[in-house]
Amino acid sequence: MSLTERELRRLLEDVAAGRVAVAEAAGTLSGYVDLGFANVDVERAERRGIPEVVFGQGKTPEHIAAVARVLHDRGQRVLATRVDAEKAAAIADLLPGLPVRYEALARCLCVEDAPAPDQGRGPLLVVAAGTSDLPVAEESVVTARMCGNTVETLYDVGVAGLHRLISRVDLLRSASVLIVVAGMEGALPSVVGGLVARPVIAVPTSVGYGANLGGVAALLAMLNSCASGVTVVNIDNGFGAAFAATLMNRAELR
Amino acid sequence: MSLTERELRRLLEDVAAGRVAVAEAAGTLSGYVDLGFANVDVERAERRGIPEVVFGQGKTPEHIAAVARVLHDRGQRVLATRVDAEKAAAIADLLPGLPVRYEALARCLCVEDAPAPDQGRGPLLVVAAGTSDLPVAEESVVTARMCGNTVETLYDVGVAGLHRLISRVDLLRSASVLIVVAGMEGALPSVVGGLVARPVIAVPTSVGYGANLGGVAALLAMLNSCASGVTVVNIDNGFGAAFAATLMNRAELR
Amino acid sequence: MSLTERELRRLLEDVAAGRVAVAEAAGTLSGYVDLGFANVDVERAERRGIPEVVFGQGKTPEHIAAVARVLHDRGQRVLATRVDAEKAAAIADLLPGLPVRYEALARCLCVEDAPAPDQGRGPLLVVAAGTSDLPVAEESVVTARMCGNTVETLYDVGVAGLHRLISRVDLLRSASVLIVVAGMEGALPSVVGGLVARPVIAVPTSVGYGANLGGVAALLAMLNSCASGVTVVNIDNGFGAAFAATLMNRAELR
Amino acid sequence: MSLTERELRRLLEDVAAGRVAVAEAAGTLSGYVDLGFANVDVERAERRGIPEVVFGQGKTPEHIAAVARVLHDRGQRVLATRVDAEKAAAIADLLPGLPVRYEALARCLCVEDAPAPDQGRGPLLVVAAGTSDLPVAEESVVTARMCGNTVETLYDVGVAGLHRLISRVDLLRSASVLIVVAGMEGALPSVVGGLVARPVIAVPTSVGYGANLGGVAALLAMLNSCASGVTVVNIDNGFGAAFAATLMNRAELR
Amino acid sequence: MSLTERELRRLLEDVAAGRVAVAEAAGTLSGYVDLGFANVDVERAERRGIPEVVFGQGKTPEHIAAVARVLHDRGQRVLATRVDAEKAAAIADLLPGLPVRYEALARCLCVEDAPAPDQGRGPLLVVAAGTSDLPVAEESVVTARMCGNTVETLYDVGVAGLHRLISRVDLLRSASVLIVVAGMEGALPSVVGGLVARPVIAVPTSVGYGANLGGVAALLAMLNSCASGVTVVNIDNGFGAAFAATLMNRAELR
Amino acid sequence: MSLTERELRRLLEDVAAGRVAVAEAAGTLSGYVDLGFANVDVERAERRGIPEVVFGQGKTPEHIAAVARVLHDRGQRVLATRVDAEKAAAIADLLPGLPVRYEALARCLCVEDAPAPDQGRGPLLVVAAGTSDLPVAEESVVTARMCGNTVETLYDVGVAGLHRLISRVDLLRSASVLIVVAGMEGALPSVVGGLVARPVIAVPTSVGYGANLGGVAALLAMLNSCASGVTVVNIDNGFGAAFAATLMNRAELR
Amino acid sequence: MSLTERELRRLLEDVAAGRVAVAEAAGTLSGYVDLGFANVDVERAERRGIPEVVFGQGKTPEHIAAVARVLHDRGQRVLATRVDAEKAAAIADLLPGLPVRYEALARCLCVEDAPAPDQGRGPLLVVAAGTSDLPVAEESVVTARMCGNTVETLYDVGVAGLHRLISRVDLLRSASVLIVVAGMEGALPSVVGGLVARPVIAVPTSVGYGANLGGVAALLAMLNSCASGVTVVNIDNGFGAAFAATLMNRAELR
Amino acid sequence: MSLTERELRRLLEDVAAGRVAVAEAAGTLSGYVDLGFANVDVERAERRGIPEVVFGQGKTPEHIAAVARVLHDRGQRVLATRVDAEKAAAIADLLPGLPVRYEALARCLCVEDAPAPDQGRGPLLVVAAGTSDLPVAEESVVTARMCGNTVETLYDVGVAGLHRLISRVDLLRSASVLIVVAGMEGALPSVVGGLVARPVIAVPTSVGYGANLGGVAALLAMLNSCASGVTVVNIDNGFGAAFAATLMNRAELR
Repeated sequence: MSLTERELRRLLEDVAAGRVAVAEAAGTLSGYVDLGFANVDVERAERRGIPEVVFGQGKTPEHIAAVARVLHDRGQRVLATRVDAEKAAAIADLLPGLPVRYEALARCLCVEDAPAPDQGRGPLLVVAAGTSDLPVAEESVVTARMCGNTVETLYDVGVAGLHRLISRVDLLRSASVLIVVAGMEGALPSVVGGLVARPVIAVPTSVGYGANLGGVAALLAMLNSCASGVTVVNIDNGFGAAFAATLMNRAELR
Repeated sequence: MSLTERELRRLLEDVAAGRVAVAEAAGTLSGYVDLGFANVDVERAERRGIPEVVFGQGKTPEHIAAVARVLHDRGQRVLATRVDAEKAAAIADLLPGLPVRYEALARCLCVEDAPAPDQGRGPLLVVAAGTSDLPVAEESVVTARMCGNTVETLYDVGVAGLHRLISRVDLLRSASVLIVVAGMEGALPSVVGGLVARPVIAVPTSVGYGANLGGVAALLAMLNSCASGVTVVNIDNGFGAAFAATLMNRAELR
Repeated sequence: MSLTERELRRLLEDVAAGRVAVAEAAGTLSGYVDLGFANVDVERAERRGIPEVVFGQGKTPEHIAAVARVLHDRGQRVLATRVDAEKAAAIADLLPGLPVRYEALARCLCVEDAPAPDQGRGPLLVVAAGTSDLPVAEESVVTARMCGNTVETLYDVGVAGLHRLISRVDLLRSASVLIVVAGMEGALPSVVGGLVARPVIAVPTSVGYGANLGGVAALLAMLNSCASGVTVVNIDNGFGAAFAATLMNRAELR
Repeated sequence: MSLTERELRRLLEDVAAGRVAVAEAAGTLSGYVDLGFANVDVERAERRGIPEVVFGQGKTPEHIAAVARVLHDRGQRVLATRVDAEKAAAIADLLPGLPVRYEALARCLCVEDAPAPDQGRGPLLVVAAGTSDLPVAEESVVTARMCGNTVETLYDVGVAGLHRLISRVDLLRSASVLIVVAGMEGALPSVVGGLVARPVIAVPTSVGYGANLGGVAALLAMLNSCASGVTVVNIDNGFGAAFAATLMNRAELR
Repeated sequence: MSLTERELRRLLEDVAAGRVAVAEAAGTLSGYVDLGFANVDVERAERRGIPEVVFGQGKTPEHIAAVARVLHDRGQRVLATRVDAEKAAAIADLLPGLPVRYEALARCLCVEDAPAPDQGRGPLLVVAAGTSDLPVAEESVVTARMCGNTVETLYDVGVAGLHRLISRVDLLRSASVLIVVAGMEGALPSVVGGLVARPVIAVPTSVGYGANLGGVAALLAMLNSCASGVTVVNIDNGFGAAFAATLMNRAELR
Repeated sequence: MSLTERELRRLLEDVAAGRVAVAEAAGTLSGYVDLGFANVDVERAERRGIPEVVFGQGKTPEHIAAVARVLHDRGQRVLATRVDAEKAAAIADLLPGLPVRYEALARCLCVEDAPAPDQGRGPLLVVAAGTSDLPVAEESVVTARMCGNTVETLYDVGVAGLHRLISRVDLLRSASVLIVVAGMEGALPSVVGGLVARPVIAVPTSVGYGANLGGVAALLAMLNSCASGVTVVNIDNGFGAAFAATLMNRAELR
Repeated sequence: MSLTERELRRLLEDVAAGRVAVAEAAGTLSGYVDLGFANVDVERAERRGIPEVVFGQGKTPEHIAAVARVLHDRGQRVLATRVDAEKAAAIADLLPGLPVRYEALARCLCVEDAPAPDQGRGPLLVVAAGTSDLPVAEESVVTARMCGNTVETLYDVGVAGLHRLISRVDLLRSASVLIVVAGMEGALPSVVGGLVARPVIAVPTSVGYGANLGGVAALLAMLNSCASGVTVVNIDNGFGAAFAATLMNRAELR
Repeated sequence: MSLTERELRRLLEDVAAGRVAVAEAAGTLSGYVDLGFANVDVERAERRGIPEVVFGQGKTPEHIAAVARVLHDRGQRVLATRVDAEKAAAIADLLPGLPVRYEALARCLCVEDAPAPDQGRGPLLVVAAGTSDLPVAEESVVTARMCGNTVETLYDVGVAGLHRLISRVDLLRSASVLIVVAGMEGALPSVVGGLVARPVIAVPTSVGYGANLGGVAALLAMLNSCASGVTVVNIDNGFGAAFAATLMNRAELR
């Protein structure tokens, strides 16, 4: 935690005056808030440029709501991924008065007072091979927007009908960072990577059957891409791709 | 074994007259010649349209030469694959007077009195992604020619430089069967498969490193191809692809 | 997209006269119709000889119906695979007046005005090792018929009772292309491949248990077949085998 | 160790009289002889019906010779597997006067005063798919003969030329136990298993390339055999198959 | 099919006289009965000594009942494995008057008029490491009894409490064939194998968690057993082990 | 079983006097109690210092209750792991009057008359990377306490926010044994292992998605830890880690 | 290929005047130069911002030299990776007069007239866990410098001695892009990723033994990193990481 | 690094007086010595109780000698593992006057002025299944002795001859920590673990062939051990097991 001396002084004065609770001040000073079941890393926004994001799968609505409140109270945007519709409704009930929004296709829950201002060098483009890949692609879109990027999309342009992609080369080349989402044989990032001069992040999806091995086939293809400059994230990890793309796209070096 | 009655009668007369040895006649009748270390399937040319091919890896020059002689004596073309230069020379020494030819890049040894006549419906095209894939691609070329196909090639057209492939779409579409050879991410058959209306046989190669897992990455990609109509053979199996392509390309149904 | 100049002229006149909507004309010219959630590759029938087929798994009835309508409106046959009975009923309700047909065992939904005329060089034979393999085998049968093949079948002839297969060698040899479907140890394509002189497409199924690893055991066996000329498709991919078989069986080279 | 009281008494008398060394008597009583680098399980012949066999790979000639001497001194047959020609010569030099024999193709070293008498219920048959499988098959043959079986062989009868196998069904059915050795797709044990009413032991070999994964493809195929009654041993384990076959074939239950 | 000439003559007379239906006679002559959805291998009892067994998983009650009737009508015992209680009840309803019996723990359905007479050389022993392995072990027990063996059991004797096994060595050594069932680390067959002089068939189970990989850990351990003479069947394949054990245990060589 | 002669005498007197049932005495002498479905290893507490623990998954409430009663009657603590809430309630109903306790997060059922006295050399520390790892971590906590350890915890200190861990180095160094639980990339044990001079037991969890392969990714990372002194247990095996930690932490060598 | 009309005109005039050979002009227009064995993608520098790089493994010195000459003649920098010392010397002999340089630890051969000017937004930092990882790390360093980056390094800072890393946090935070190279458990990128707000590219190496599976353990760990923003390249792919880092670090968007 | 103020003062005085070089003092203060190619973690002995150990594989003699000198100069024992005889001789030549010792079977190089005093709670026992496992077992022995343990051994007691192990139960129970080394099916740690009340560290070895998968079979078996309290290290990692055992065996808690 790196408070300036002045911020530190003010914090202590606030504690002395009862304006800030002791526990909260301790959290600010230690860099995390201990909720018993979790240590919320409130310093992350400062340290990494993006606040802690909640991986919602396997967590209770109560836990997610509690973390969301801590982050929102500190003025940070809240994003919870892998949240189904039912859980999202339960969380919203637990956070009355907060600006909760649910993105169904992306399975993301957001809490933000206003859209994030664009902090990127240029537009970020999310490309998807097939319609079955859309939930993963949309997780990228929602994450990237909340992290302060302008986002465009190009969907259903798999390599079996190459003309659909070739006809949009201008769009591909206009992006400052590209996220390319594909399942099955995972060939699309290699083809896109060969056409542009900007970073390409490949996201394998578990879409497919048989010997796709739950997305491992696409993952291996992307790691072995003959198009240099392609880097890869975990299977179905649309969030991680957008997080990485944000770091690549930041106009200001921090 | 399906000799006509007349052929059978002639064979027996030849045996009676000493023109054909008993052992050989037994071989003809049983459909194979027992060399002690091997049962040469001399009936295969009749049954499958292509004579038995020798997989040369791990066999001694003496064994390969013996089988070659049996096949050549019956008027069949001889092809031995996976034969290195040293072994090829040793085999040639064991077969004086026979028309032995060695194809170095393809690592194939051939024994044939004349080029095989074209029995195909059209030209067979062998496409390769990179120069490292050429030994496998050439194994396909040599095999396909010996099996009676006209063969053309298109090499070093990997998807990282798509314009090299796109500029040759006419060539791709002129072939009656295509063999597409690729290592690394194995994307090329999917792209080619999307561009043509003829059978595409994908051959994964062990070219690459790291997580290519000896060609398994390319193999999985090809099996999961989003381009319908692509079928796959074993890693580095240029011979098998050409054999299958020959069956697909035969002008006469047998 | 390769319209002749004359077709192009007529299309533009139709647009000018209001006979064809602008969006549809754009689709015709670009080679695909943009439905928002999907780019229907309407050019595929021309480019590959077979229209785009819908992989129904994971898609909503609404999406499938919309794509079906686009294709049917352009005079193309519609095939949607991996559609369960409930979803098929919902789709049929969304397409009143269209000739929708559901093939239950094959889990396929078809929309066609009349059976496809036979365009093949000869009959296509689908062979299956056991009764548990029938859903995959029937997916091949339905697909192959819609693609213009005469199809025959030979079921439950696994290698544990070899006499069932041997007694039908004549049927095996009468086919111009063979699709051989098997789970467990996947031996059947090797045995069949050794008996015929025509292309054999092997389809591994996920039938079995324990160390069959979801069909990977059969897949590996088929890729390593000692019978040359066998090519392989993905696990349970009856559709892909039939598509490939159609390309091999076409009487007219396109 | 289960010496009768009488044997025990005699042993102790021998020790007292100096006819047997103390260390050796200790070995007899404990059931093993401690050579420092190894505890030779001299009781195994009694306990399991077959003496301890030396796995020669990775052992020095000195170690193998020492164990061989211990076993031979106790009147047991000696078999060392995975011994190359050079190592065999070195061992023979270390055992002057002993009846050492080297079986080159099987890579086995044997020390026995006379052939083992036949203790089996009937002939044991070793079947091999291809000539490349012979080293493994011969390891079975040598082992089985030393363990007291009459052995017959049937080689190069892979399923790609089924007539070679079918024509020998009588031989297959005459055996009391069958060992079936195959690499590549490993289909042969399933076919043989379907034809006979006696135990079939399947031995996968590492013969093949590409996706045979060092024999794993054949191993999986055999484990998933649709022919009931097939049991499997480790890849290339010709010795283990013969050992198991011996136990199955023993005329006398012990 | 190997009817003697006399049997053949009688069969034809029966057909002529209407005592046997044409379809059934065709089945007898061809060696299988074609039910449309299946070719029942009625010749298997003669060829392999044990009738065809129905793998019940994934089959409908109607299909199982139909095959059961064909087999029972020919005087063969019927065994259907992997049948849950509900399906068993449905099958029993479809076979009124037949002696249907359901073995719940083994998940096996049996139809037999009387217990099978003992045809073995001695008792067959089924050993299981833990109580979770009992369903697989009991599948072996039921199968072995129907195939004509006297069966004994020894359960819950895993190697973590070795005294439970050691105290029963006499029982282990009294068996003519042993089936050893274990999950987790799969060590039990190696320990048992080292103690007896009779064949040991190892059955890995999917019991365990984490890195047991659905039984693959136990399977690999058994294939790599340091105790010679152990052979292995597929994961959870209690039926297969019993079938193989029956072939090994037959008093009469067929 | 190692009763002193005096204990043995007393036991027999008790049997003679009817104070102990014959079956129970037999159990005591043999080292296990045969319940038909299980051989309870009642000697384990003496032999290994910790009583037999029941792996509850897949067992019926009746079976678990029966074993619990046997152990409790012999004065041993009872721990059943992998018991869900519903099953726990059923077991409690079957054990009226016994001190049954259910730990919900750890999914453990305990029966003990009093807390176990501390027999350790120092406190045992359970560290967890994320909140999703808590069920596994708590299984360790409950087990370790029942085995006689003082336990402390440090949760949600994953390496993505290293300051949370670094600020607690004193706590890490105060423990005599550490159990470190982590999913995803499994890096935490390596980091902790580098900071302390006491044994570290790493527990991989199945937490994560995509290429975590059900915990195999974390498992492999831990096995390859660059921090020496880290040993590993099976995926999600919180119980096993605590059992091992207890053996390491015992103040008295037994 | 996107020449302006003016460039095109000049090229044609040069051809007409004999200043440019026809073959070379064809190459310029088609975007690649056909050397027979390879199609050199001379357009790549324009299209992707970095010229084609030669993967030297498995290529002959003659082939590498020929491609190098084509690229150098067009004023492009030449980089060949995976070139051992002997091959490098042979290539240098084939390119007399060219500024060939060999970087031994990185196994890279470079041909450049002058160092590349810095085109990055800030310094690029290469971090390596251990000394065995240096060849891969240095491949990154050499590549990144040739692509126009200022590069700094931080080596031997594996997580087993965390203080070595923590003491250099300022260096970590000063970089605009970080490449983190690690074998064994691959934990370092997760730790670094948690400390910085810039893109982190993880490079798994094959360093380690046993269950590192040739680098797959480290690869999986990196893909499952709990530190968001980490993207991954293939095992040992130092070149690919540097290529991707260059695209991320470019000051000018192209 | 935790120097007391007094030690710090003395160090600075030594620097001022020229008695200690600046670079060395910097190393002492930073906790590591920067050799350019490596940061020697000289603080590790203090932090972890055992000095840094050199993994010799892939390192040059010069590098190993340099690190050895740094450690020896600071009065620490030096251990380099995975050093072959030739490299050991080269290192010894580079360290004249130092007490270098080479343990050939263990492939370890040691530099120590005197044997390490025993700091353990009791003897440490190394158990090995077969003679092929001895190099790994001896690596444990040498490491454990240098770390201050009394070590005993029990070799060649694999489970195929269980009496060899059972007869030594007293030895097993006398140890305070046990290291159990086994390849093939890896059953020995489970059997030993069930017999003792002290920690058991299992070391899988790559000994075996076929489906042992380079030691993965043994590794999986050990991770799935039914004997609680067994923890596991990487394949062939005798060093790591001894390091962990040392931490478990320390009489003094640090």
